[in-house]
Amino acid sequence: MKEIALIGSTGSIGTQTLDVIRQHQDRFRVRLLACGTNIERLKQQIAEFHPEVVVIRDEKDLIKLEAHLPTGTKAVAGETALLEEIAKTNASFVMNAIVGSQGLKPTMAAIKAGKTIGIANKETLVTAGHLVTEACNHYGAQLIAVDSEHSAILQSLEGSKREEISRLIVTASGGSFRDWSAEELQHARPEDALKHPNWSMGQKVTIDSATMMNKGLEVIEAHWLFNMPYESIDVLIHRESIIHSLVEYQDKSMIAQLGTPDMKVAIQYALAYPDRLELNGPERLNLWEVGTLHFEKIDPLKHQCLMMAYQAGKTGGSAPTVLNAANEVAVQMFLEGKLTFTGIATVVEKALSEHTVIDHPSIEKVLEIDEETRTRMMTG
Amino acid sequence: MKEIALIGSTGSIGTQTLDVIRQHQDRFRVRLLACGTNIERLKQQIAEFHPEVVVIRDEKDLIKLEAHLPTGTKAVAGETALLEEIAKTNASFVMNAIVGSQGLKPTMAAIKAGKTIGIANKETLVTAGHLVTEACNHYGAQLIAVDSEHSAILQSLEGSKREEISRLIVTASGGSFRDWSAEELQHARPEDALKHPNWSMGQKVTIDSATMMNKGLEVIEAHWLFNMPYESIDVLIHRESIIHSLVEYQDKSMIAQLGTPDMKVAIQYALAYPDRLELNGPERLNLWEVGTLHFEKIDPLKHQCLMMAYQAGKTGGSAPTVLNAANEVAVQMFLEGKLTFTGIATVVEKALSEHTVIDHPSIEKVLEIDEETRTRMMTG
Repeated sequence: MKEIALIGSTGSIGTQTLDVIRQHQDRFRVRLLACGTNIERLKQQIAEFHPEVVVIRDEKDLIKLEAHLPTGTKAVAGETALLEEIAKTNASFVMNAIVGSQGLKPTMAAIKAGKTIGIANKETLVTAGHLVTEACNHYGAQLIAVDSEHSAILQSLEGSKREEISRLIVTASGGSFRDWSAEELQHARPEDALKHPNWSMGQKVTIDSATMMNKGLEVIEAHWLFNMPYESIDVLIHRESIIHSLVEYQDKSMIAQLGTPDMKVAIQYALAYPDRLELNGPERLNLWEVGTLHFEKIDPLKHQCLMMAYQAGKTGGSAPTVLNAANEVAVQMFLEGKLTFTGIATVVEKALSEHTVIDHPSIEKVLEIDEETRTRMMTG
Repeated sequence: MKEIALIGSTGSIGTQTLDVIRQHQDRFRVRLLACGTNIERLKQQIAEFHPEVVVIRDEKDLIKLEAHLPTGTKAVAGETALLEEIAKTNASFVMNAIVGSQGLKPTMAAIKAGKTIGIANKETLVTAGHLVTEACNHYGAQLIAVDSEHSAILQSLEGSKREEISRLIVTASGGSFRDWSAEELQHARPEDALKHPNWSMGQKVTIDSATMMNKGLEVIEAHWLFNMPYESIDVLIHRESIIHSLVEYQDKSMIAQLGTPDMKVAIQYALAYPDRLELNGPERLNLWEVGTLHFEKIDPLKHQCLMMAYQAGKTGGSAPTVLNAANEVAVQMFLEGKLTFTGIATVVEKALSEHTVIDHPSIEKVLEIDEETRTRMMTG
């Protein structure tokens, strides 16, 4: 029986994680659920999974839960309580499905407790990859990718040794604007960007997909997760999103993971790793039904955000934190009609050029620079 | 240092095996070379690799070798000598690259000696899969696939457990006639069939590729190599031969091996298994250069030979031996202009229907039925 702590239980990855656990109640047991403010959904999750402890963001919401706590379930609130509960839970596996920079401290708490961590929180590796990697080595903790691309790489690395790998190839659908010209992109509206061709995702990540910034963030994550230099991580446009990513070995052989787009495959792979369990839900992939797979090269002129992410990753230190924070604000401005689509790259580039990079920032420094960048963008 | 016995050293797989060994002289050493009648090439191989023993087919050729044997290399001739040398060699790895049913006894000798065997000889598994599998379990020997499709499956199975696998998908280029209609196939000539689109191979296998019989034989091999029921082995037409085969797991995830078509990748993978070494020669695969991959479903009406192979495999016993022997004769008749292309399927079907299947035939019985089928076809 693998015991699970689920941070971010009411979001998209969180609820899908519970969908997987529901199918394998003989293997997984939920010890801890943590969420933000969706108390109604949390109540249902408590009733179904009977965790030992639930953690919510705001103290004031505790009263709404009181009448709904079964015997043996306690409820606490706030970030400090969350970090304490992660430190003392008996769960061996922590799924971090929080969105945003607030995911960073829970990851570090889980690492210090020597847990295995399913990492669905991008910020952890993008902004603090250097600290996370060091801490994992020090505390004997293990990160397991949950993103479909990184899960594909992990699955394609099975049984291999680090020195045998020559290249990682992260595939990208190309997003909503993959067939738009540079001219047309000037006039792209939020409602155009939000039509993602393959995956149903949140607004932020759908825009990131259109700018290819999400692929840039994934390249930075892949660098840390798999200990690969940026020169050996390629991005390949593959519009059907059937091949979820590939690994090239030193004998020129490539291994790839394929499937219909369904996050539950990657979520379950992380939970059950290194085993593979049956999974109901995702459709079987029949390649003759798909018929054709297409591949295109990255265009550095069109995919500026991706190029900036490579650059920030190579620069290292605090640069990826600024990239990520500036991008979040820029996407929000675009969604609110305050910035053009092509303006996203421009303002992120400006934020990066105005920042003096700090080497090896601490968690506190990372969070400070994150905050500072956002404030600077909002006001300037 | 892995010590190698190479049976069939002067053929296509044999010389490519030596190409691989040449690149890794710090890891591999040739102990034994065996070949048929290409004494000139064998002389060069002896001069380069200094094996302890060479085995040739005909006693009368020994005299041609005499002056070319360095100190420490002895030469013997004939099948009995070959089997004896396999039994007593210190090589831990035997590459069986002989073509045809004469490959069967060397494989069995290697199994009885507890060797690891790189199996490039189709007949071994097609005609004696039941015996080979039993003997491997009994003597603790291991078979490693060398065919590009089976190597792809092996590579895609890395790190997994048997019960996690739900399906093997063997890819097929579709051969020279993949775009020909049933009507056009009636008039297909040997010179048309011999233009294989992707791989450069011998005449027999190129014709087998055009009839899809080679894919049928590969399905039977996959059944034995990976212990999979025929119902869980699919064939998928993939004209570019870039994806060399795939494995589907019970979580609906698929793992595939890809690469430019070069047999040396599979040969080296078998030799170095479970390690992967650097390999010069094969070109790197850039999918954006390929641009598009196509997939089509099998057509049971057009791919009769494949359907017959499935049927013979499911029937088991001596049926696959008859299928294989009848097909070899039919292909030869087609090449000699004595049979139409579509006649190949017809005469194989006739041979199968005239044969009374024997359950669990011995090696001697397999060889007897093989011989009998050929004689019957030639005379009738």
